[in-house]
Amino acid sequence: VPEELSREEARERLRRALEAHDAEGTIALAEEHPRSIAEAAYELSSTELAYLLLVLGDERLARVVATLDASETADVLLRMSRAQAADVLEEMAPDDAADVVGELEGSEAESILVEMEPAEAEDVRELLAYPPDTAGGLMTPEFLIVSPDLTADQAIERVRDFVEEDRSAYHVYVTDAEEHLLGVLPLHSLVLSGRQMLVRDLMIPREDTVAVAVDMNQEDVARLFGERRLLALPVVDGSDRLLGLITADDVADVVEEEASEDIALMGATSPLEQPYLRTSILEMVRKRIGWLLLLFVAETLTGSVLRFFEDELARVVALSFFIPLLIGTGGNAGSQTVTTIVRALALREIRFRDAGRVFMREAGSGVILGLLLGVIGFGRALLWGTHLPLALVVGLTLLAICAWANTIGSLVPLVAERLGIDPTVMSAPLITTLVDASGLFIYFTIAKILLGL
Amino acid sequence: VPEELSREEARERLRRALEAHDAEGTIALAEEHPRSIAEAAYELSSTELAYLLLVLGDERLARVVATLDASETADVLLRMSRAQAADVLEEMAPDDAADVVGELEGSEAESILVEMEPAEAEDVRELLAYPPDTAGGLMTPEFLIVSPDLTADQAIERVRDFVEEDRSAYHVYVTDAEEHLLGVLPLHSLVLSGRQMLVRDLMIPREDTVAVAVDMNQEDVARLFGERRLLALPVVDGSDRLLGLITADDVADVVEEEASEDIALMGATSPLEQPYLRTSILEMVRKRIGWLLLLFVAETLTGSVLRFFEDELARVVALSFFIPLLIGTGGNAGSQTVTTIVRALALREIRFRDAGRVFMREAGSGVILGLLLGVIGFGRALLWGTHLPLALVVGLTLLAICAWANTIGSLVPLVAERLGIDPTVMSAPLITTLVDASGLFIYFTIAKILLGL
Repeated sequence: VPEELSREEARERLRRALEAHDAEGTIALAEEHPRSIAEAAYELSSTELAYLLLVLGDERLARVVATLDASETADVLLRMSRAQAADVLEEMAPDDAADVVGELEGSEAESILVEMEPAEAEDVRELLAYPPDTAGGLMTPEFLIVSPDLTADQAIERVRDFVEEDRSAYHVYVTDAEEHLLGVLPLHSLVLSGRQMLVRDLMIPREDTVAVAVDMNQEDVARLFGERRLLALPVVDGSDRLLGLITADDVADVVEEEASEDIALMGATSPLEQPYLRTSILEMVRKRIGWLLLLFVAETLTGSVLRFFEDELARVVALSFFIPLLIGTGGNAGSQTVTTIVRALALREIRFRDAGRVFMREAGSGVILGLLLGVIGFGRALLWGTHLPLALVVGLTLLAICAWANTIGSLVPLVAERLGIDPTVMSAPLITTLVDASGLFIYFTIAKILLGL
Repeated sequence: VPEELSREEARERLRRALEAHDAEGTIALAEEHPRSIAEAAYELSSTELAYLLLVLGDERLARVVATLDASETADVLLRMSRAQAADVLEEMAPDDAADVVGELEGSEAESILVEMEPAEAEDVRELLAYPPDTAGGLMTPEFLIVSPDLTADQAIERVRDFVEEDRSAYHVYVTDAEEHLLGVLPLHSLVLSGRQMLVRDLMIPREDTVAVAVDMNQEDVARLFGERRLLALPVVDGSDRLLGLITADDVADVVEEEASEDIALMGATSPLEQPYLRTSILEMVRKRIGWLLLLFVAETLTGSVLRFFEDELARVVALSFFIPLLIGTGGNAGSQTVTTIVRALALREIRFRDAGRVFMREAGSGVILGLLLGVIGFGRALLWGTHLPLALVVGLTLLAICAWANTIGSLVPLVAERLGIDPTVMSAPLITTLVDASGLFIYFTIAKILLGL
């Protein structure tokens, strides 16, 4: 049962082991706490890092840095010599190595790739050609293929060769000479079959094998893994030629990455490309200024609404006391709704064609929530000593604004989806801003009527 | 390459196949589009559902409904007879079956469990005893164990028996008579070894095997899978006895579920327990009213601040024109920051001990963003014909409020984490509400000084 070491403790213990030239201790540390040691490796000097590589060897160091994100691994590699970085990359799975190389500048990437073994560099180059958010970007080109005409015994020999290169094989794929996918052979059917049986008679045939197109979006790949409870999925091109293999351990990363993206967009900021502490302040400003500025401009609408009702405001200054409360509550109700709807869209629980049902539910719950808050707001206003008609205006506005915020918060992302815009960019702050201006209009209109202004 | 059928089309084709008593067509449909057919199965009557079960058989229907969420599967099972539901559950993996049974009312669950085969019901009951968000709640108790004293040949016989019950075995676990975990045996080493070699000499020994404690939080389990790139992970109790097995396909569900929870909390609403369209309006109101009410009460503070500055407001009505713009912008800046910080905390990119560095970055980016917006806001106010001193107040307030919002948005979740409160509940709406009242205070203080009120 692995226990997590704090970063400080890991760094301290690693430094002590390195200083004492305690190779055995360093190796034990790296085996037991790869993640903590990987984080500690960040803070090592290039010389210390070179010594760590020497002690651990390429393969063990590759396993250690594999616990980091691709961008973090790239940072560590940049602090090694190019030859050292190439050695470590060679020991990583080609799909992981490609993710790391993809994080490097073009010229840096190239200067490391030329130091790698040609075959391994070629694998990485091929993978880099696929967009990173597609099945092609997720797959590894390292998989075991056999011909359907082999006997089980011959196929087992192929497994032996493959495993001896320190690669794991749970499934064997069956292809013809042109690499068209013919079927899949679970390792256990190979173990349990008669030794002279033919692969073609042992395999699960193509029509019962789930495979995905190389350009399938990574979100759809992840969904398929979840629905079919798969551990591995072959990737094919348009002519059903086998290009690669995606394993379930890659999919959790995808789900996490997509969630991070959705969360960032819903907070009206762009997702960071690097871990938080490694992102510069200017980069953070760049990620935020676009939305902040857009929302600022939209928010100036509230000024126009208030100037439009300038006379009413001057006559009843108390009207302004309730402005932040009313539009704040509308914004909160809208945030709740848009968060719920955008997530339901992302999980495919609803689509545009459900707009009618969604509208009925959100308008309904908006009215119920608005009634509850309206009664409480009415009472609270009276307790503040507000005169009865104004308290009534506040209560009624709360009812109207909650119903309105829920409606906007549900319909805007649905319409965005319909128009082919990612509904996730319909963030809570955007809905809040829309509700601010329109909510003020609702408030003053009710006030004009009830207070006879 | 599977293609998704729209829900309507799937329902239409399924109904046609069922009405025509076209068993072959129904089976082909279920094999090709399990997810669409599962969704269509919702809208079938109990009689149609019974007929579907008859045509497809328990096993195939189990595979179809396994593409749904546990709560959705539970809904489908409730529309079958108890004996039919029990048959389908028996064909599901015990961990998935336990998730489904866990969604049922206690009495409903019991009445279906008693209809199941005793051994399978026992598996499900045992799994239900573990909290669903721990390693115990994720694991399956179906795994293959062998003694270290068997020969490879004998172990292969055990694999044969296991696989013949239609279970897949990629790893074989080695335990002693008391079920203590001694090691793991990859299937390929069994295939490739001499037939008379002993399991104890073939296995990867315990010290090189990663295993997790049964009470480990599911988020930590998911993180470990990602870091170590595992496909399967054994689960042990406090005495290192093997209790179950978690496979990578379960982990993507965990990551997605945790992301949904985080997203909901960050939108100041509680996560739904059922898919959106299956959640009643009253349930949705219940999920939202708590936060909405709390924020409403907090937001009434803005009224107190405004009443405190009543004289100033009455003297310069134009002050109120900028209220929504200023607090709205502060809220947006705070939302961006809290979203970024909460996600970084969830991904363990930062911890409380990084508070100093986080503060410096957020205060820094807040000042930069505030300067940019301050200049723009100052210009916009002048263009509206606002007199110079008030325009200056607006510009300076934007600077101060952005810096302040970023500071609150970063420190509040860090302090929450420190106090053992889930920082995710520090939602964007909460920060917005805090910034509303304090932002007004900042605005009027600057106004009093610069305008000499």
